[in-house]
Amino acid sequence: MKNLTLDQFTKDTASDSPVPGGGSIAAVCGALSASLTSMVANLTIGKKNYVEVENEMIIIAEKAEGIRQKMLDYIETDCDAFNAVLDAFKLPKETDEEKSNRTEAIQDALKKAASVPFEIATAAYEIMDLAEHVVLKGNSNAVTDGIISAMTARTAVLAALLNVKINLGTIKDEAFVEDLRKRVSELENDSINAEKKILDLISF
Amino acid sequence: MKNLTLDQFTKDTASDSPVPGGGSIAAVCGALSASLTSMVANLTIGKKNYVEVENEMIIIAEKAEGIRQKMLDYIETDCDAFNAVLDAFKLPKETDEEKSNRTEAIQDALKKAASVPFEIATAAYEIMDLAEHVVLKGNSNAVTDGIISAMTARTAVLAALLNVKINLGTIKDEAFVEDLRKRVSELENDSINAEKKILDLISF
Repeated sequence: MKNLTLDQFTKDTASDSPVPGGGSIAAVCGALSASLTSMVANLTIGKKNYVEVENEMIIIAEKAEGIRQKMLDYIETDCDAFNAVLDAFKLPKETDEEKSNRTEAIQDALKKAASVPFEIATAAYEIMDLAEHVVLKGNSNAVTDGIISAMTARTAVLAALLNVKINLGTIKDEAFVEDLRKRVSELENDSINAEKKILDLISF
Repeated sequence: MKNLTLDQFTKDTASDSPVPGGGSIAAVCGALSASLTSMVANLTIGKKNYVEVENEMIIIAEKAEGIRQKMLDYIETDCDAFNAVLDAFKLPKETDEEKSNRTEAIQDALKKAASVPFEIATAAYEIMDLAEHVVLKGNSNAVTDGIISAMTARTAVLAALLNVKINLGTIKDEAFVEDLRKRVSELENDSINAEKKILDLISF
Protein backbone atom coordinates (compact mmCIF):
# COMPACT_ATOMS: atom_id res chain seq x y z
CA MET A 1 0.00 0.00 0.00
CA LYS A 2 3.01 2.28 0.56
CA ASN A 3 3.63 1.88 -3.17
CA LEU A 4 0.36 3.57 -4.07
CA THR A 5 0.66 7.14 -5.34
CA LEU A 6 -0.67 9.96 -3.17
CA ASP A 7 -3.46 10.41 -5.72
CA GLN A 8 -4.43 6.72 -5.77
CA PHE A 9 -4.16 6.25 -1.99
CA THR A 10 -6.43 9.22 -1.24
CA LYS A 11 -8.79 8.11 -4.04
CA ASP A 12 -9.00 4.62 -2.50
CA THR A 13 -9.59 6.17 0.92
CA ALA A 14 -12.40 8.36 -0.45
CA SER A 15 -14.19 5.37 -2.02
CA ASP A 16 -17.12 3.54 -0.39
CA SER A 17 -14.81 0.81 0.90
CA PRO A 18 -14.15 1.05 4.65
CA VAL A 19 -10.40 0.48 4.14
CA PRO A 20 -8.09 2.28 4.00
CA GLY A 21 -9.70 4.32 6.77
CA GLY A 22 -8.78 6.42 9.77
CA GLY A 23 -6.21 3.99 11.19
CA SER A 24 -4.26 3.91 7.95
CA ILE A 25 -4.46 7.71 7.69
CA ALA A 26 -3.00 7.90 11.21
CA ALA A 27 -0.08 5.79 9.98
CA VAL A 28 0.40 8.04 6.91
CA CYS A 29 0.44 11.10 9.21
CA GLY A 30 3.05 9.28 11.29
CA ALA A 31 5.18 8.65 8.20
CA LEU A 32 4.85 12.30 7.14
CA SER A 33 5.81 13.45 10.63
CA ALA A 34 8.85 11.16 10.80
CA SER A 35 10.00 12.36 7.37
CA LEU A 36 9.86 16.03 8.42
CA THR A 37 11.93 15.40 11.56
CA SER A 38 14.40 13.43 9.42
CA MET A 39 14.59 16.33 6.99
CA VAL A 40 15.48 18.86 9.68
CA ALA A 41 18.15 16.49 11.04
CA ASN A 42 19.50 15.91 7.51
CA LEU A 43 19.55 19.67 6.85
CA THR A 44 21.64 20.06 10.03
CA ILE A 45 24.18 17.29 9.44
CA GLY A 46 27.35 18.57 7.74
CA LYS A 47 26.62 22.26 8.42
CA LYS A 48 29.57 24.00 10.05
CA ASN A 49 27.43 26.00 12.49
CA TYR A 50 25.99 22.78 13.85
CA VAL A 51 29.09 20.63 14.35
CA GLU A 52 28.36 20.23 18.05
CA VAL A 53 25.01 18.54 17.45
CA GLU A 54 26.10 16.52 14.40
CA ASN A 55 26.23 13.14 16.16
CA GLU A 56 22.89 13.74 17.84
CA MET A 57 21.32 14.66 14.49
CA ILE A 58 22.70 11.50 12.84
CA ILE A 59 21.05 9.39 15.54
CA ILE A 60 17.77 11.32 15.22
CA ALA A 61 17.76 10.93 11.42
CA GLU A 62 18.30 7.17 11.78
CA LYS A 63 15.57 6.77 14.40
CA ALA A 64 13.11 8.88 12.39
CA GLU A 65 13.85 6.89 9.24
CA GLY A 66 13.11 3.68 11.15
CA ILE A 67 9.77 5.09 12.28
CA ARG A 68 8.96 6.30 8.74
CA GLN A 69 9.41 2.79 7.39
CA LYS A 70 7.46 1.22 10.25
CA MET A 71 4.59 3.67 9.69
CA LEU A 72 4.44 2.89 5.98
CA ASP A 73 4.02 -0.80 6.86
CA TYR A 74 1.31 0.00 9.42
CA ILE A 75 -0.85 1.53 6.66
CA GLU A 76 -1.44 -1.99 5.38
CA THR A 77 -1.32 -3.77 8.76
CA ASP A 78 -4.23 -1.63 9.94
CA CYS A 79 -6.31 -2.54 6.86
CA ASP A 80 -5.51 -6.23 7.42
CA ALA A 81 -6.59 -6.03 11.06
CA PHE A 82 -9.88 -4.40 10.06
CA ASN A 83 -10.52 -6.98 7.34
CA ALA A 84 -9.79 -9.81 9.79
CA VAL A 85 -12.67 -8.56 11.97
CA LEU A 86 -15.03 -8.60 8.96
CA ASP A 87 -13.82 -12.11 8.04
CA ALA A 88 -14.40 -13.38 11.60
CA PHE A 89 -17.99 -12.12 11.50
CA LYS A 90 -18.54 -14.16 8.32
CA LEU A 91 -17.59 -17.47 10.00
CA PRO A 92 -20.35 -20.14 10.16
CA LYS A 93 -22.61 -20.06 13.21
CA GLU A 94 -24.91 -23.08 12.79
CA THR A 95 -23.68 -25.45 15.52
CA ASP A 96 -22.75 -24.57 19.11
CA GLU A 97 -19.11 -25.32 18.33
CA GLU A 98 -19.18 -23.02 15.31
CA LYS A 99 -20.81 -20.29 17.36
CA SER A 100 -18.19 -20.61 20.06
CA ASN A 101 -15.34 -20.63 17.55
CA ARG A 102 -16.80 -17.61 15.76
CA THR A 103 -17.17 -15.61 18.97
CA GLU A 104 -13.60 -16.40 19.91
CA ALA A 105 -12.31 -15.49 16.44
CA ILE A 106 -14.22 -12.18 16.51
CA GLN A 107 -12.82 -11.32 19.93
CA ASP A 108 -9.27 -12.17 18.86
CA ALA A 109 -9.65 -10.05 15.72
CA LEU A 110 -11.07 -7.13 17.70
CA LYS A 111 -8.13 -7.27 20.11
CA LYS A 112 -5.75 -7.15 17.16
CA ALA A 113 -7.76 -4.29 15.60
CA ALA A 114 -7.30 -2.35 18.87
CA SER A 115 -3.63 -3.30 19.30
CA VAL A 116 -2.45 -2.22 15.84
CA PRO A 117 -3.60 1.42 16.16
CA PHE A 118 -2.18 1.47 19.70
CA GLU A 119 1.19 0.50 18.21
CA ILE A 120 0.78 3.25 15.58
CA ALA A 121 0.05 5.79 18.33
CA THR A 122 3.06 4.64 20.38
CA ALA A 123 5.42 4.93 17.39
CA ALA A 124 3.99 8.35 16.43
CA TYR A 125 4.49 9.58 19.99
CA GLU A 126 8.17 8.58 19.78
CA ILE A 127 8.61 11.12 16.96
CA MET A 128 7.59 13.99 19.24
CA ASP A 129 10.73 13.70 21.35
CA LEU A 130 12.86 13.67 18.19
CA ALA A 131 10.92 16.64 16.79
CA GLU A 132 11.53 18.61 19.97
CA HIS A 133 15.26 18.02 19.62
CA VAL A 134 15.43 19.17 16.00
CA VAL A 135 13.33 22.27 16.80
CA LEU A 136 15.65 23.19 19.69
CA LYS A 137 19.02 22.25 18.22
CA GLY A 138 18.61 21.64 14.48
CA ASN A 139 19.02 23.94 11.46
CA SER A 140 17.03 27.04 12.39
CA ASN A 141 16.06 27.61 8.74
CA ALA A 142 13.90 24.49 9.00
CA VAL A 143 12.38 25.13 12.42
CA THR A 144 8.82 25.28 11.05
CA ASP A 145 9.29 21.82 9.54
CA GLY A 146 10.17 20.45 12.99
CA ILE A 147 7.09 22.07 14.49
CA ILE A 148 4.87 20.76 11.69
CA SER A 149 6.36 17.32 12.37
CA ALA A 150 5.10 17.63 15.96
CA MET A 151 1.63 18.76 14.81
CA THR A 152 1.37 15.84 12.42
CA ALA A 153 2.59 13.37 15.06
CA ARG A 154 -0.05 14.66 17.49
CA THR A 155 -2.77 13.98 14.93
CA ALA A 156 -1.30 10.55 14.16
CA VAL A 157 -1.40 9.67 17.88
CA LEU A 158 -4.92 10.99 18.54
CA ALA A 159 -6.37 9.51 15.34
CA ALA A 160 -4.89 6.09 16.07
CA LEU A 161 -6.08 6.19 19.69
CA LEU A 162 -9.61 7.02 18.55
CA ASN A 163 -9.53 3.79 16.57
CA VAL A 164 -8.30 1.93 19.66
CA LYS A 165 -11.19 3.33 21.71
CA ILE A 166 -13.90 2.45 19.18
CA ASN A 167 -12.67 -1.15 19.20
CA LEU A 168 -12.38 -1.37 22.99
CA GLY A 169 -16.14 -0.89 23.24
CA THR A 170 -16.72 -4.31 21.67
CA ILE A 171 -14.05 -6.36 23.49
CA LYS A 172 -15.25 -8.59 26.33
CA ASP A 173 -11.90 -9.26 28.04
CA GLU A 174 -12.24 -6.71 30.84
CA ALA A 175 -8.61 -6.84 31.98
CA PHE A 176 -7.43 -6.21 28.40
CA VAL A 177 -9.87 -3.32 28.00
CA GLU A 178 -9.04 -1.74 31.34
CA ASP A 179 -5.30 -1.91 30.76
CA LEU A 180 -5.47 -0.49 27.25
CA ARG A 181 -7.98 2.21 28.17
CA LYS A 182 -5.61 3.48 30.87
CA ARG A 183 -2.66 3.53 28.46
CA VAL A 184 -4.77 5.26 25.79
CA SER A 185 -5.72 8.01 28.21
CA GLU A 186 -2.09 8.56 29.24
CA LEU A 187 -0.85 8.65 25.66
CA GLU A 188 -3.62 11.09 24.64
CA ASN A 189 -2.61 13.53 27.35
CA ASP A 190 1.11 13.05 26.74
CA SER A 191 0.81 13.73 23.01
CA ILE A 192 -1.36 16.84 23.49
CA ASN A 193 1.12 18.18 26.07
CA ALA A 194 4.15 17.32 23.91
CA GLU A 195 2.73 19.21 20.92
CA LYS A 196 1.85 22.20 23.12
CA LYS A 197 5.36 22.22 24.59
CA ILE A 198 6.95 22.22 21.11
CA LEU A 199 4.57 24.92 19.80
CA ASP A 200 5.47 27.09 22.80
CA LEU A 201 9.22 26.81 22.11
CA ILE A 202 9.07 29.29 19.24
CA SER A 203 6.88 32.31 18.67
CA PHE A 204 6.26 33.83 15.24
CA MET B 1 4.24 15.17 -7.21
CA LYS B 2 0.82 13.62 -6.47
CA ASN B 3 1.99 10.73 -8.63
CA LEU B 4 4.81 9.88 -6.23
CA THR B 5 4.22 6.82 -4.06
CA LEU B 6 3.75 7.29 -0.31
CA ASP B 7 7.17 5.69 0.16
CA GLN B 8 8.92 7.95 -2.36
CA PHE B 9 7.17 11.14 -1.26
CA THR B 10 8.09 10.64 2.41
CA LYS B 11 11.62 9.60 1.38
CA ASP B 12 11.98 12.82 -0.66
CA THR B 13 10.64 14.84 2.27
CA ALA B 14 13.14 13.20 4.65
CA SER B 15 16.09 14.05 2.40
CA ASP B 16 18.35 17.07 2.90
CA SER B 17 16.47 19.05 0.25
CA PRO B 18 14.18 21.72 1.76
CA VAL B 19 11.31 20.73 -0.56
CA PRO B 20 8.93 19.06 -0.20
CA GLY B 21 8.63 20.52 3.30
CA GLY B 22 6.01 21.52 5.84
CA GLY B 23 3.78 23.38 3.39
CA SER B 24 3.49 20.37 1.11
CA ILE B 25 2.88 18.12 4.12
CA ALA B 26 0.02 20.44 5.12
CA ALA B 27 -1.46 19.91 1.64
CA VAL B 28 -1.09 16.11 1.93
CA CYS B 29 -2.86 16.25 5.32
CA GLY B 30 -5.60 18.26 3.61
CA ALA B 31 -5.94 15.64 0.88
CA LEU B 32 -6.09 12.84 3.49
CA SER B 33 -8.72 14.76 5.45
CA ALA B 34 -10.86 15.41 2.38
CA SER B 35 -10.66 11.75 1.39
CA LEU B 36 -11.90 10.59 4.82
CA THR B 37 -14.90 12.91 4.74
CA SER B 38 -15.61 11.72 1.18
CA MET B 39 -15.42 8.12 2.41
CA VAL B 40 -18.01 8.64 5.16
CA ALA B 41 -20.33 10.39 2.68
CA ASN B 42 -19.82 7.59 0.14
CA LEU B 43 -20.50 4.95 2.84
CA THR B 44 -23.79 6.77 3.58
CA ILE B 45 -25.07 7.22 0.01
CA GLY B 46 -27.37 4.38 -1.07
CA LYS B 47 -27.94 3.05 2.49
CA LYS B 48 -31.64 2.65 3.28
CA ASN B 49 -31.32 4.03 6.82
CA TYR B 50 -29.87 7.24 5.47
CA VAL B 51 -32.27 8.07 2.62
CA GLU B 52 -33.16 11.41 4.19
CA VAL B 53 -29.56 12.68 4.04
CA GLU B 54 -28.71 11.13 0.67
CA ASN B 55 -28.77 14.36 -1.33
CA GLU B 56 -26.72 16.18 1.30
CA MET B 57 -24.14 13.39 1.29
CA ILE B 58 -23.85 13.47 -2.50
CA ILE B 59 -23.09 17.21 -2.33
CA ILE B 60 -20.56 16.67 0.50
CA ALA B 61 -18.80 13.88 -1.40
CA GLU B 62 -18.52 16.12 -4.48
CA LYS B 63 -17.18 19.09 -2.51
CA ALA B 64 -14.69 16.93 -0.61
CA GLU B 65 -13.49 15.33 -3.85
CA GLY B 66 -12.90 18.81 -5.27
CA ILE B 67 -10.82 19.74 -2.21
CA ARG B 68 -8.88 16.45 -2.39
CA GLN B 69 -7.84 17.21 -5.97
CA LYS B 70 -7.01 20.84 -5.16
CA MET B 71 -4.87 19.74 -2.19
CA LEU B 72 -2.93 17.25 -4.30
CA ASP B 73 -2.07 20.09 -6.70
CA TYR B 74 -1.03 22.36 -3.80
CA ILE B 75 1.69 19.84 -2.82
CA GLU B 76 3.61 20.92 -5.90
CA THR B 77 2.46 24.56 -5.93
CA ASP B 78 3.96 25.02 -2.46
CA CYS B 79 7.32 23.59 -3.58
CA ASP B 80 7.26 25.88 -6.64
CA ALA B 81 6.58 28.94 -4.47
CA PHE B 82 9.48 28.03 -2.17
CA ASN B 83 11.84 27.45 -5.10
CA ALA B 84 10.80 30.79 -6.63
CA VAL B 85 12.07 32.53 -3.47
CA LEU B 86 15.42 30.75 -3.75
CA ASP B 87 15.63 31.68 -7.46
CA ALA B 88 14.89 35.33 -6.71
CA PHE B 89 17.75 35.43 -4.19
CA LYS B 90 20.08 34.16 -6.93
CA LEU B 91 19.33 37.11 -9.26
CA PRO B 92 22.30 39.39 -10.12
CA LYS B 93 22.94 42.32 -7.78
CA GLU B 94 25.81 44.25 -9.37
CA THR B 95 24.14 47.42 -10.66
CA ASP B 96 21.57 49.54 -8.82
CA GLU B 97 18.93 48.48 -11.33
CA GLU B 98 19.74 44.79 -10.73
CA LYS B 99 19.62 45.33 -6.98
CA SER B 100 16.25 47.01 -7.23
CA ASN B 101 14.85 44.32 -9.55
CA ARG B 102 16.18 41.58 -7.28
CA THR B 103 14.64 43.11 -4.16
CA GLU B 104 11.31 43.43 -5.95
CA ALA B 105 11.48 39.84 -7.24
CA ILE B 106 12.30 38.54 -3.74
CA GLN B 107 9.40 40.43 -2.22
CA ASP B 108 6.99 39.19 -4.91
CA ALA B 109 8.18 35.62 -4.38
CA LEU B 110 7.83 35.90 -0.59
CA LYS B 111 4.27 37.17 -0.97
CA LYS B 112 3.47 34.19 -3.15
CA ALA B 113 5.19 31.85 -0.66
CA ALA B 114 2.91 33.26 2.06
CA SER B 115 -0.23 33.25 -0.10
CA VAL B 116 -0.02 29.61 -1.22
CA PRO B 117 -0.04 28.12 2.32
CA PHE B 118 -2.83 30.55 3.23
CA GLU B 119 -4.85 29.09 0.36
CA ILE B 120 -4.03 25.57 1.62
CA ALA B 121 -5.20 26.53 5.11
CA THR B 122 -8.42 28.06 3.76
CA ALA B 123 -9.23 24.95 1.70
CA ALA B 124 -8.42 22.64 4.64
CA TYR B 125 -10.70 24.65 6.90
CA GLU B 126 -13.56 24.15 4.41
CA ILE B 127 -13.33 20.40 5.05
CA MET B 128 -14.12 20.85 8.75
CA ASP B 129 -17.69 21.94 8.06
CA LEU B 130 -18.16 18.93 5.75
CA ALA B 131 -16.58 16.63 8.37
CA GLU B 132 -18.99 17.92 11.02
CA HIS B 133 -21.94 17.07 8.79
CA VAL B 134 -20.77 13.50 8.09
CA VAL B 135 -20.06 12.94 11.80
CA LEU B 136 -23.54 14.16 12.75
CA LYS B 137 -25.61 12.69 9.92
CA GLY B 138 -23.48 10.15 8.04
CA ASN B 139 -23.09 6.38 8.42
CA SER B 140 -22.52 5.89 12.14
CA ASN B 141 -20.22 2.90 11.47
CA ALA B 142 -17.70 5.36 10.03
CA VAL B 143 -18.03 8.08 12.65
CA THR B 144 -14.39 7.80 13.74
CA ASP B 145 -13.29 8.39 10.14
CA GLY B 146 -15.23 11.68 10.12
CA ILE B 147 -13.61 12.72 13.39
CA ILE B 148 -10.14 11.77 12.12
CA SER B 149 -10.89 13.86 9.02
CA ALA B 150 -11.43 16.85 11.33
CA MET B 151 -8.20 16.15 13.27
CA THR B 152 -6.23 15.93 10.04
CA ALA B 153 -7.84 19.11 8.66
CA ARG B 154 -6.90 20.96 11.87
CA THR B 155 -3.27 19.97 11.42
CA ALA B 156 -3.37 20.91 7.73
CA VAL B 157 -4.70 24.37 8.65
CA LEU B 158 -2.25 25.02 11.50
CA ALA B 159 0.76 23.65 9.62
CA ALA B 160 -0.02 25.77 6.56
CA LEU B 161 -0.58 28.88 8.69
CA LEU B 162 2.78 28.38 10.41
CA ASN B 163 4.36 28.59 6.96
CA VAL B 164 2.40 31.76 6.23
CA LYS B 165 3.67 33.32 9.46
CA ILE B 166 7.33 32.47 8.89
CA ASN B 167 7.12 34.18 5.50
CA LEU B 168 5.27 37.24 6.80
CA GLY B 169 8.31 38.11 8.93
CA THR B 170 10.32 38.87 5.79
CA ILE B 171 7.73 40.81 3.77
CA LYS B 172 8.07 44.60 3.71
CA ASP B 173 4.58 45.52 2.44
CA GLU B 174 3.03 46.40 5.79
CA ALA B 175 -0.57 46.50 4.60
CA PHE B 176 -0.18 43.02 3.07
CA VAL B 177 1.40 41.69 6.28
CA GLU B 178 -1.16 43.26 8.60
CA ASP B 179 -4.11 42.00 6.55
CA LEU B 180 -2.78 38.46 6.28
CA ARG B 181 -1.67 38.31 9.93
CA LYS B 182 -5.21 39.14 11.04
CA ARG B 183 -6.71 36.49 8.78
CA VAL B 184 -4.13 33.92 9.95
CA SER B 185 -5.02 34.55 13.57
CA GLU B 186 -8.76 34.18 12.87
CA LEU B 187 -8.30 30.98 10.89
CA GLU B 188 -6.05 29.48 13.60
CA ASN B 189 -8.70 30.05 16.25
CA ASP B 190 -11.53 28.94 13.99
CA SER B 191 -9.82 25.65 13.09
CA ILE B 192 -8.90 24.83 16.71
CA ASN B 193 -12.50 25.53 17.79
CA ALA B 194 -13.97 23.58 14.87
CA GLU B 195 -11.91 20.48 15.73
CA LYS B 196 -12.82 20.78 19.42
CA LYS B 197 -16.51 21.07 18.53
CA ILE B 198 -16.40 17.94 16.37
CA LEU B 199 -14.41 15.97 18.99
CA ASP B 200 -17.02 16.94 21.59
CA LEU B 201 -19.90 15.65 19.45
CA ILE B 202 -19.14 12.01 20.28
CA SER B 203 -17.72 10.41 23.41
CA PHE B 204 -16.08 7.00 23.41
